[in-house]
Amino acid sequence: MNIAAAQSGGPTCAINASLAGVFSEGRMNSKIDKIYGALNGIEGIINNDLIDLTEVLTCYEDMELLKKTPSAVLGSCRYKLPEYEKDNEVYKKITDCFIKNDIKAFFYIGGNDSMDTVAKLSKYFKENDIDIKVIGIPKTIDNDLKMTDHTPGFGSAAKYLAVTLQEITRDSAVYDVKSVTIVEIMGRDAGWLTASSCVLHANGETAPHLIYMPEANLSHQKILGDIKEQLKIHDTVIVAVSEGITSEDGEYAAADFQSGADDAFGHKYLSGIGKCLEQLVRKEIGCKVRSVELNVMQRCASHMASKTDIEESFRIGSEGVKAAAAGETGKMMAFRRTSSKPFFCSVESVDVNEVANKEKKLPQEWINESGNNVNDEAIDYFLPLIKGEVSIPMKNGMPVHMKIKR
Amino acid sequence: MNIAAAQSGGPTCAINASLAGVFSEGRMNSKIDKIYGALNGIEGIINNDLIDLTEVLTCYEDMELLKKTPSAVLGSCRYKLPEYEKDNEVYKKITDCFIKNDIKAFFYIGGNDSMDTVAKLSKYFKENDIDIKVIGIPKTIDNDLKMTDHTPGFGSAAKYLAVTLQEITRDSAVYDVKSVTIVEIMGRDAGWLTASSCVLHANGETAPHLIYMPEANLSHQKILGDIKEQLKIHDTVIVAVSEGITSEDGEYAAADFQSGADDAFGHKYLSGIGKCLEQLVRKEIGCKVRSVELNVMQRCASHMASKTDIEESFRIGSEGVKAAAAGETGKMMAFRRTSSKPFFCSVESVDVNEVANKEKKLPQEWINESGNNVNDEAIDYFLPLIKGEVSIPMKNGMPVHMKIKR
Repeated sequence: MNIAAAQSGGPTCAINASLAGVFSEGRMNSKIDKIYGALNGIEGIINNDLIDLTEVLTCYEDMELLKKTPSAVLGSCRYKLPEYEKDNEVYKKITDCFIKNDIKAFFYIGGNDSMDTVAKLSKYFKENDIDIKVIGIPKTIDNDLKMTDHTPGFGSAAKYLAVTLQEITRDSAVYDVKSVTIVEIMGRDAGWLTASSCVLHANGETAPHLIYMPEANLSHQKILGDIKEQLKIHDTVIVAVSEGITSEDGEYAAADFQSGADDAFGHKYLSGIGKCLEQLVRKEIGCKVRSVELNVMQRCASHMASKTDIEESFRIGSEGVKAAAAGETGKMMAFRRTSSKPFFCSVESVDVNEVANKEKKLPQEWINESGNNVNDEAIDYFLPLIKGEVSIPMKNGMPVHMKIKR
Repeated sequence: MNIAAAQSGGPTCAINASLAGVFSEGRMNSKIDKIYGALNGIEGIINNDLIDLTEVLTCYEDMELLKKTPSAVLGSCRYKLPEYEKDNEVYKKITDCFIKNDIKAFFYIGGNDSMDTVAKLSKYFKENDIDIKVIGIPKTIDNDLKMTDHTPGFGSAAKYLAVTLQEITRDSAVYDVKSVTIVEIMGRDAGWLTASSCVLHANGETAPHLIYMPEANLSHQKILGDIKEQLKIHDTVIVAVSEGITSEDGEYAAADFQSGADDAFGHKYLSGIGKCLEQLVRKEIGCKVRSVELNVMQRCASHMASKTDIEESFRIGSEGVKAAAAGETGKMMAFRRTSSKPFFCSVESVDVNEVANKEKKLPQEWINESGNNVNDEAIDYFLPLIKGEVSIPMKNGMPVHMKIKR
């Protein structure tokens, strides 16, 4: 019998490591013959667009390279399955592909949208007595999946953010003038990644001096007041802000700032919250100010991946294959943290319906009363996830990446 | 007798390595007692704001840490000396500081503005029979200093750019749709850093597919036409663009695009060229498009510094002390490349007046006829500069930086 894996949603540094984990465990299992990769997520199954990974990954070095390559080598998609009760055409296509290729288990590496696919597919197979196991392997830099302590990909994003924020802090402090640097961080609805910037405090940095997450509602005046307060204490104020912070009425603050300040700034369209706050500080405080958007580097900077993250992502992929082999289906593999010092996580399977289309917010009790920083509990949670560096194979001074012709 | 060093202009990954080189060579020279660091460039001399570096750097590990710390530990400034014939007040203050502290040689690490300070100071001392040597140590990620093959700091910026651009390329290719990714790169007037993105081609990448440098004048229509052409060949088009590209009339293209397209985009103020081109592609081509500004990370990402750059920057600092000890003054230390394969550079001293306030442009013969890419000669020039990785001391998953209380 054969198995198949696919990758879905936004890419990360660790999604290929999870694919390597699935592949590696598949190779260890003598009942499994071929291990297929579906191109561009579930669309590759629907269109019978598969590649035989056993022909691509032929030695240990290939596996190592795959683990250390950012983004999704199989390609990704953003495809939502319809309810099969309403439209089962696509389910038939998927089933055809699996049967034709003797695929008995499918591993879908993705975030909460992808877990919706795992939930629907496994339900369809169960109710139609089709013996194909479907297992979700979590993945997202947003760290917002329920039922798991954290998500593969998050640790590497947090590590890149920490390292870069520390360097930006050094850079910001060179001139003998008061200055504000605003760093815009990914995370539309959950502030995990932004909050993780607190790890700098564990290394004796005072930055970031202010941390704004979507979980804390904020007004312009509050933020400006906070910054003025910090400028009294520090010459160089570093502000970590989530792209998705909301203002008091629950709207995205960027939209609010922009529409609310259209004449003053005149920029509804192009700017994120970083640029908005930069403009606000320039106008209302008048000191040196700049903003930095860390953009997609947060999810693809494999050269600064967390070793913990890459190893865990590999492991959770491999545990997924074991779960399917043990007869499980409709499950997502999850981390359960048993200890932070020393760090230890077990991998278990959870009901995918508890994860699909849901979102885990940052605990409110980690956020301080002013809504502009997090406490030591947060630091203890984040620190183990960014530990360790990955040794990257280099050629001509640049990393070597695995590429699969799609 | 004592010596002093200071850092000036925009920070880089390598400016502290040059300071370490000055310090190290100073410690080797038995005639030199104290090695002072002036805080915030020449302002530290003017204000007699010095620290005794021999009290701060007390062991080998301190030196190693300094070499690997981004930005300028002594702080920086943007201060232009007046002509002393018109105003010699500040020259008197500087001389007082040097005499009071028995400083016989001054090493100024900086770019072409800083070399103006070296030129003026050394001229003043010579003409007033004051025996204080003044030596410039080059530094700039822009690589635009005359009389030197390349500048300390540039190789690390180019390496960070190459590594990040390759990762962005992986990230951009995940979805099965045509897309354009525009990466905005530092370099207001010279395109060295942007051009250096061509090193990806040496590793078999087709990206960047288009490279736009300030040295090639361009129109919107030309750029749009280029992108359309590339979209016919590649699903994922990566465009490397210098923040300072100029349009046909010689104006900065960002300004031109913005003012010329005010109604359509309405964003004169906030956006750089990346956002402008993003808007243009969205409007005129309509495919998936995004822009990424690499911002200050290009000059401070020490975690991905070039080993070649850090070692050379150390060496050129140390050679500066030797030159002063040999009686030279009014000189800038410079690299002369004798071979690219294998890479070899000698260090020599050049007349600082040949460097101060001047700018070295990218050779026109490296730019292709269409003005949208560079040739193999450029690749051969850039490749050795990004070679090698620096091993970074880590704590809690983050680099350890040297901090000097200022």
